[in-house]
Amino acid sequence: MKIIVQKFGGTSVRDDRGRKHSLMHIKHALEEGYKVVVVVSAMGRSGEPYATDTLLNLIEAKDTGVSTREQDLLLSCGEIISSIVFSNMLNKNGVKATAINGAAAGFCTNDDFTNAKIVDMKCDRLRSMLEEHDVVVVAGFQGQTEEGDITTLGRGGSDTSASALGASLQADYIDIFTDVEGVMTADPRIVEDARPLDVVTYNEICNMAYSGAKVIHPRAVEIAMHAKVPLRVRSTYSTSTGTLVTVKGSNEIQERIVTGIAHVSHVTQIKVMEKEGAYDLQATVFKAMAAANISVDFINISPTGVAYTVNGDVTERAVAILREKGYEPIVTEHCAKVSIVGAGIAGVPGVTSKIVTALSEQGIGILQSADSHTTIWVLVRDEDMIQAVNALHGAFELSGEMAKDFE
Amino acid sequence: MKIIVQKFGGTSVRDDRGRKHSLMHIKHALEEGYKVVVVVSAMGRSGEPYATDTLLNLIEAKDTGVSTREQDLLLSCGEIISSIVFSNMLNKNGVKATAINGAAAGFCTNDDFTNAKIVDMKCDRLRSMLEEHDVVVVAGFQGQTEEGDITTLGRGGSDTSASALGASLQADYIDIFTDVEGVMTADPRIVEDARPLDVVTYNEICNMAYSGAKVIHPRAVEIAMHAKVPLRVRSTYSTSTGTLVTVKGSNEIQERIVTGIAHVSHVTQIKVMEKEGAYDLQATVFKAMAAANISVDFINISPTGVAYTVNGDVTERAVAILREKGYEPIVTEHCAKVSIVGAGIAGVPGVTSKIVTALSEQGIGILQSADSHTTIWVLVRDEDMIQAVNALHGAFELSGEMAKDFE
Repeated sequence: MKIIVQKFGGTSVRDDRGRKHSLMHIKHALEEGYKVVVVVSAMGRSGEPYATDTLLNLIEAKDTGVSTREQDLLLSCGEIISSIVFSNMLNKNGVKATAINGAAAGFCTNDDFTNAKIVDMKCDRLRSMLEEHDVVVVAGFQGQTEEGDITTLGRGGSDTSASALGASLQADYIDIFTDVEGVMTADPRIVEDARPLDVVTYNEICNMAYSGAKVIHPRAVEIAMHAKVPLRVRSTYSTSTGTLVTVKGSNEIQERIVTGIAHVSHVTQIKVMEKEGAYDLQATVFKAMAAANISVDFINISPTGVAYTVNGDVTERAVAILREKGYEPIVTEHCAKVSIVGAGIAGVPGVTSKIVTALSEQGIGILQSADSHTTIWVLVRDEDMIQAVNALHGAFELSGEMAKDFE
Repeated sequence: MKIIVQKFGGTSVRDDRGRKHSLMHIKHALEEGYKVVVVVSAMGRSGEPYATDTLLNLIEAKDTGVSTREQDLLLSCGEIISSIVFSNMLNKNGVKATAINGAAAGFCTNDDFTNAKIVDMKCDRLRSMLEEHDVVVVAGFQGQTEEGDITTLGRGGSDTSASALGASLQADYIDIFTDVEGVMTADPRIVEDARPLDVVTYNEICNMAYSGAKVIHPRAVEIAMHAKVPLRVRSTYSTSTGTLVTVKGSNEIQERIVTGIAHVSHVTQIKVMEKEGAYDLQATVFKAMAAANISVDFINISPTGVAYTVNGDVTERAVAILREKGYEPIVTEHCAKVSIVGAGIAGVPGVTSKIVTALSEQGIGILQSADSHTTIWVLVRDEDMIQAVNALHGAFELSGEMAKDFE
């Protein structure tokens, strides 16, 4: 049985244009001889009755004793309703489809409610349903514990559902449909000549996703990578096959150095200098952040002190904690982390030089930097971010043309 | 552990007045030392987003290939959402509550989707939740098959859920909350001096329910009866304990002959006369009705022919079938079945005489009659129904006063 997994977001279920195009993609796959496993998110936009946030608003969960177990049970209804409405739409359009919830589709998870991990996939039932139907629509974002409790998979949960199904069924492709043309060299909202990539490696897309590119959840990528199932990021509204995510191997990948530029804004840089005679600074600072459940990033540790970034929302809390411990942090709010991602970076001389040159030509100061073998990160001021991403996009010729001349 | 099961309808979850009163009943039970298992229906009235019919409208099930399995999965969301909103409301009001779906509460059913039968109750989980919470809110109307498919229990499903939980947990009481004061001697909308009964037998309430009194589903009564758990039909909006449904035993029950008058209107009487020389009429007629899935009632078989009633909606279809078979039925549309229910009827002389006298005094013709040891049924014209029910209610002194003089 040739199987393809196709994941559609909430708007593909809710509005006419989305429905029309998703139907087209499914019919196309059927014509090519595939059985199609469709994964859907909750339908509709914020504020509509069956959207995730509307369901959540029914209980104002924070103020009351409602458990995360109950919250997951409630939210799972959003995707269940969506899956059945979608299956109904397919049947009305002559496609032999049926819908099932995550539990019946085989998602066995731990009981880490609101952010459950998949511990096993039991897809026998789904396989036998595929014998009798051309399409099985699975409610995304959800699973079930051994004890029978419904769970949800956390952020990007429906992407993860699609990947886990693709891996377990050994599908030919996992297609993640979005509203962009694929994985872009940079955010097209800020870089005019950003273009979709034909192919990226699993590592690159993971790094881009973790670095702020909101195309697909990294967990979904890791599952597909592990199972060696090709994953495609595609546009619902186009016939293009989008960006293929694969292992390193294609000529396109091998020839290029940098794949894309990602960014995250609204970041705060915090520096704490070592006090004379006290040598417990590093342990004290990071223990205090961890105890307060504050994520730290971009960590530079040196004999004279530490520097790191936190999400702008927790600035005040982070600073207060440091002051309580007797430190006087140096705080720079309104920063942005710009990531230069590319599997080809490792061992290629001159990449850092190119970055520094491109930014300094624009008069953009680098507040901090870090690098791995596939990514270089620079911290700049928020106000410089758009210019920085464009400069780097140009310097590495990501638009597919020659680098532009910068003044 | 002292347990009470309390079932609330959708309006008790949705509107302020309903919430306030149901909270009062639950707190009262807690003060008396009970743990409370609450069963809820889907919330809201027809047309609101999480009401059963609104969910069903999302798929217009009849016209498409959506299976009854999917329909049940969809509808189950209504009660799940309701249970969590209700649990949240309780917690906000200082009651330690949690919610679970039917599957987790232990409802094991067959796979007769849309009308599933409970085959087993596995309440260990629910019992352990009651150790840690004062109230567990269970989504009514639903269960799960051995294979893991969600099912619904059909009409009156939440009543059935409450009874099954009460039976399995050996609860002290099963309270079914409605918008009336209990089981009434007759429909208060048509009999001005109808009054709530303090106590009725399981058999009486079953007969009244099957005869058109819409208080509680007979299946729920049968389960409670079998488990010998007292069931009470109560008003959400009153502190009264309503009507106790029990085995025959109380003085009130033993002394009275007739308990109540029920009615069903919009019934069609069909008579088919035996043709000379043909003796297969009985078998032919009822086989034909069964083959067309038409329910028949009030069956009088005699050597000269048969008479029976059908729901007014299927009159045309029933008549067409009979004509196809070569019969010319005598059809009387717009009839009503009036039931005189009482565990004391059996063996008491003069009951039939009293009925006939009461009706003939009002000039009401009896089109047909039937009787069992606990109920006497008469078929009258729809236009006579209200007068007939009032006359019988008066003749048997059901208002609690002396019988009125009829002109």
